[in-house]
Amino acid sequence: MTKSDIPFDMVVVGATGDLGRRKLLPALYFLHKYGEISPKGRIFAVSRQKGTRETFLELAAASSKRHIAPDELNPQDWESFTKRLDYVTVDATDGATYQPLSEKLADRQNRVRVFYLATSPNLYGAISRAIHDAGLITPKSRIVLEKPIGTDLQSATAINSSVGEVFGEDQIFRIDHYLGKETVQNLMALRFGNILFEPMWRSEHIDHVQITVAETLGVEGRGGYYDKSGALRDMVQNHLLQLLCLTAMEPPARLEQDAIREEKIKVLRALRPFSLEEIEQKTVRGSYRLGAIAGETVPGYLDEPDVDEKSTTETFVALKAEIENWRWAGVPFYLRTGKRMGHRVSEIIIQFKQVPHQLFKSRTRAIQPNRLVIRLQPDEAIKLGLMTKRPGPRMILEREELNLNLADRPGAHTFQAYERLLLDVIRGVTTLFMHRTEVEAAWTWVEQILEGWQELGGRPRSYNSGTWGPPKSIALLERDGRSWYEHIVDLER
Amino acid sequence: MTKSDIPFDMVVVGATGDLGRRKLLPALYFLHKYGEISPKGRIFAVSRQKGTRETFLELAAASSKRHIAPDELNPQDWESFTKRLDYVTVDATDGATYQPLSEKLADRQNRVRVFYLATSPNLYGAISRAIHDAGLITPKSRIVLEKPIGTDLQSATAINSSVGEVFGEDQIFRIDHYLGKETVQNLMALRFGNILFEPMWRSEHIDHVQITVAETLGVEGRGGYYDKSGALRDMVQNHLLQLLCLTAMEPPARLEQDAIREEKIKVLRALRPFSLEEIEQKTVRGSYRLGAIAGETVPGYLDEPDVDEKSTTETFVALKAEIENWRWAGVPFYLRTGKRMGHRVSEIIIQFKQVPHQLFKSRTRAIQPNRLVIRLQPDEAIKLGLMTKRPGPRMILEREELNLNLADRPGAHTFQAYERLLLDVIRGVTTLFMHRTEVEAAWTWVEQILEGWQELGGRPRSYNSGTWGPPKSIALLERDGRSWYEHIVDLER
Repeated sequence: MTKSDIPFDMVVVGATGDLGRRKLLPALYFLHKYGEISPKGRIFAVSRQKGTRETFLELAAASSKRHIAPDELNPQDWESFTKRLDYVTVDATDGATYQPLSEKLADRQNRVRVFYLATSPNLYGAISRAIHDAGLITPKSRIVLEKPIGTDLQSATAINSSVGEVFGEDQIFRIDHYLGKETVQNLMALRFGNILFEPMWRSEHIDHVQITVAETLGVEGRGGYYDKSGALRDMVQNHLLQLLCLTAMEPPARLEQDAIREEKIKVLRALRPFSLEEIEQKTVRGSYRLGAIAGETVPGYLDEPDVDEKSTTETFVALKAEIENWRWAGVPFYLRTGKRMGHRVSEIIIQFKQVPHQLFKSRTRAIQPNRLVIRLQPDEAIKLGLMTKRPGPRMILEREELNLNLADRPGAHTFQAYERLLLDVIRGVTTLFMHRTEVEAAWTWVEQILEGWQELGGRPRSYNSGTWGPPKSIALLERDGRSWYEHIVDLER
Repeated sequence: MTKSDIPFDMVVVGATGDLGRRKLLPALYFLHKYGEISPKGRIFAVSRQKGTRETFLELAAASSKRHIAPDELNPQDWESFTKRLDYVTVDATDGATYQPLSEKLADRQNRVRVFYLATSPNLYGAISRAIHDAGLITPKSRIVLEKPIGTDLQSATAINSSVGEVFGEDQIFRIDHYLGKETVQNLMALRFGNILFEPMWRSEHIDHVQITVAETLGVEGRGGYYDKSGALRDMVQNHLLQLLCLTAMEPPARLEQDAIREEKIKVLRALRPFSLEEIEQKTVRGSYRLGAIAGETVPGYLDEPDVDEKSTTETFVALKAEIENWRWAGVPFYLRTGKRMGHRVSEIIIQFKQVPHQLFKSRTRAIQPNRLVIRLQPDEAIKLGLMTKRPGPRMILEREELNLNLADRPGAHTFQAYERLLLDVIRGVTTLFMHRTEVEAAWTWVEQILEGWQELGGRPRSYNSGTWGPPKSIALLERDGRSWYEHIVDLER
């Protein structure tokens, strides 16, 4: 099956919001344009605002010009795409207001029906209940939830339970769009499609792993939300731990069903809990202060609107995680994420060990150990650092970076994470979505750090905007005789 | 030391012959042009023919136009190169005729002195003796011998012994120019400079190895010589077994001195001897008959000049070798070489095993196991066959060929095998030259096959010129559920 022939109705709750306009509509447009979704598929934008199909199409057209590249925005394609679109005014938390939507869906009871909640997470429970009350949940219905699921274990469990009252776990698709990235997919292909990597993928040959998700943005007007959250909740609990799981998991028995999710859960449960002393030693909190990004002065976190001027919320976190299992014993996973960093970059670094015997040492500078770099942002790339011989009559080795993202051919459409994930929702493939147990296991581990910080008191260390966080983050690795991978040179050239 | 500053005198015996003109003079010219040899180095062409420096320079100039690419043949470079050149008439097997050469060398007793014998191997003993009798062997003297050393163990031992009477083993450089190839060097760099390969380099992960050296040429007027030799003596005993040794050897402790040669000898000694029955099963002899190469009709071997019309000499051999040690138990090394094949190609193929569990099988065609291709001819290349994900929203894997010969930058001078090896002779680096023990160990193994063939009787199987040898060669692998790597598509595109 190269093209999807699964008819579907997709209800996007909050379609007129930021996520809907910036990510979902473009993704659906591309799936349409490249023939990846059934011509019979319908898309219903739903929101509280009064409006008509026409007003929504106007808004969608305006938004498309901002979020779709001009050479991809073909008028005929857009025109045919809009035939799928409809708009219905619904107060999503009130079952009684669903009647107009209900009527439109009525004649297609047996097709795949997707409810995509592009809303605030604290509404997930109420909206699920309302959809149920309106009698819209069919056996082929699915619900898609965006992160964050909760702000701690308790609130996450509450959301999962209330959604779970009306949707079965196999109907719930919790999105982490990092998992839909081409490079993350290719990481799995490399590891499990080639005999060359999996035997090397263990403590015997890997020195450590680094996962960095760095943003240059600050809180961008979301100070009120962010100040209650912080980097650990906002990024580590979901994106970074998901990347850690995919990197560290055992080979699953199948790609389908729950096999991958089961392996990820095993990793989360093997994460070594921190004692209070270890939290002091192995985690670093930071908070950005006044600085410059790309030559422009930006304010400190405590001066951002809606942020408590005495806030102790971290905008940066670095930590040294350990996975207590046979494969990863003794291999640290260094995670860091922050706002107002020097560069926007998301990367997994697999640092292999040095060769056990330096055969070439007397003839050249020391051999650099192999390194696999999986970059998700700003560009997608997989690079392998290898030593090869410099051409010429002498045996002198040089480091070369080999591009493994070979399938990334110029000219071809690069499928974005949301395209892949929306398609998987329609196809009912749960592989790349988080199981309830995963979300809760991640919260369990993260919460002990949150509690530890609270118990320890104190404040995050300040770091200048435009840097890589507080010096203590650098010390975290240097103490172990290691260093954070230097993105800068690489990104600037 | 990036440039060599070792002063030397090089005496090329037989410099006016085919090897001298085609390979040695161009190699020395390039070493001069790229500043790799000391400006003080002198080169003495020596042969029986009457002649002067002037007549030799004329011959060298004429020959340079044929064997050096025009854009490399800079008049100034050539002019300065010829300042090194001199010519002396000497009957190399007669010590009494060395006087003129002796006088020219007399004022440089303490520099490196190289005798390069570009002559028939049956003269090696006599020439060595004459050089000794002429009193020309200094402590810093070296002698370079071309293959073949002998035609069987007895004659090889005789040559080694007679040369060994006047030169120490550490003064004897037996050349196999295959070992000077950039790709062969890079194979060592990849294996021992990267943690990623060596742990995979064993029976646990490698299914089998193929070594092919295929020529399109026939015996080319050397029928008289060849008919006494054959493919096994002419190619397998030296080139193919050398490539097998470098592929299969254990990591040496050092690159210098005899460490690599010791590892190669261990491989040769671990080659499993064949019973008579196994020779029947595991070796294939072939002899080319009338056929077409690149559209032109070529004669059969038995119709070649100076070939006995009832000759049973093989022009093709394929065999299945096994190395009896811990690393390679159960991993066949399939070797084949022949004249009048469809294409000229020399290649080592490392065929890795299939992944143990086919995770992706239900979604795509079967995964192809990884394969490392080390090509020495016609072009030099190292390619790794990997499975990667096809871009797009579905998990479909595709085979990609990754170029690992990264250091091969466009525009740079590619150092040829003879350049590297001549430089190693001057520097006194024996690593890439064959030790006496190696040559004799290779003959020991090859000779039992020769004896087996004689005992079994019969004739080589004919194969059409322009094909890959007799069908029995194909059956040799197919019987084991394997296939020869298909070079054809690859070479023709």
